[in-house]
Amino acid sequence: MQQGKFILIFDDDKREGETDIVMASEFVKPESIKTMRKDGGGLIFLMTSKQIADKLELPFLAEMYNCIEDKYPVLKELAPNDIPYDSKSSFSLYINHRDTFTGITDIDRTLTMTKFAELSKKIQDTNDIVSTKMFGKEFRSPGHVPICVAAEKLLDERRGHTELVVSILEMAGLSLAGSGCEIMGDNGKALSKEKAKQYAEDNNLVFLEGKEIIEAWKKWQ
Amino acid sequence: MQQGKFILIFDDDKREGETDIVMASEFVKPESIKTMRKDGGGLIFLMTSKQIADKLELPFLAEMYNCIEDKYPVLKELAPNDIPYDSKSSFSLYINHRDTFTGITDIDRTLTMTKFAELSKKIQDTNDIVSTKMFGKEFRSPGHVPICVAAEKLLDERRGHTELVVSILEMAGLSLAGSGCEIMGDNGKALSKEKAKQYAEDNNLVFLEGKEIIEAWKKWQ
Repeated sequence: MQQGKFILIFDDDKREGETDIVMASEFVKPESIKTMRKDGGGLIFLMTSKQIADKLELPFLAEMYNCIEDKYPVLKELAPNDIPYDSKSSFSLYINHRDTFTGITDIDRTLTMTKFAELSKKIQDTNDIVSTKMFGKEFRSPGHVPICVAAEKLLDERRGHTELVVSILEMAGLSLAGSGCEIMGDNGKALSKEKAKQYAEDNNLVFLEGKEIIEAWKKWQ
Repeated sequence: MQQGKFILIFDDDKREGETDIVMASEFVKPESIKTMRKDGGGLIFLMTSKQIADKLELPFLAEMYNCIEDKYPVLKELAPNDIPYDSKSSFSLYINHRDTFTGITDIDRTLTMTKFAELSKKIQDTNDIVSTKMFGKEFRSPGHVPICVAAEKLLDERRGHTELVVSILEMAGLSLAGSGCEIMGDNGKALSKEKAKQYAEDNNLVFLEGKEIIEAWKKWQ
């Protein structure tokens, strides 16, 4: 991850298991977005820690929807109370950097991701109000890049891809902003674990299972 | 579009122009999602009419954010008041069908899209309250498929991809739900018009320019 290479993370928390192709956001280049959309094919998203999200006052969408369902009754009807693999959605806002055009090209998504990683470093010593102002000065929402927010205690609390990635970033001493995408197979489903391993081998990438990261995390702490 | 084939629509409303690969949502198959993510590479989204959105009580995200910015000040900071190609964002909610698992596989996104097309037909003779209940019974939000809502008067009011697609669907007598995705190039930008034309030719697909659809629309009305 340090050299700006992708790693593959297999998470068997989900029914059939799912592999994400991920990297530290600070190293994302347009070529990386291209790889994620061509070889991954899922939703290309940002991952960050709860601490950074709190500083930026980033709400979870589900919480936000919950608090305005009187005004927008459809939000109550659409409540995500039956997610098969989780108790709640980790999705926060979708953002674009303000210097993007449509927000969706490889160049645009790269700008959004690398600038978000920069911001997450810059706000280390600023308070919430200043951080949120800095955020809004650079980014707009709605946008094309969703942010998923990790559980506060990371792998001690939840073991999804977001927590796995943010934990690795923390252990590696990198900005707590990760970029990634689920890898799809040719059969309409997520790519199988075997094929994901093969892809990693073919492309000289590290393949990690969630449980290996959890082990490393326990030792590191 | 009638036979469930993709069409390519070039829209020069935007700076460098952008081509979307689109089809009627009622005909979407997992193979179509695969084509959109492999050959398109942008955000795979649903498009529908303002009339259907109103029946489902679907809000624009920007409006929703606007009304709760006192509670979530970050929304005020992130206000999309500087979109370079438009006066407002046409994004509404992101949804998943409740029978999806993660929501992101080709099979899952196909289910979300085809069932949304079915719903848009079913609610023709129901009132808003019943329609919204039907919507919530089948779908949840947050999800992985964004809905863009066309301007009320379609091409008489706005000329983006959403209006172009919904107008074609209306002229063709199909459910007013379209599926599509921006086509990315290899250079980090949107695919050039020439290359998009070549792609259409190579794949035996119709290539239309926004102005041709506007012409047809004027005659049809």
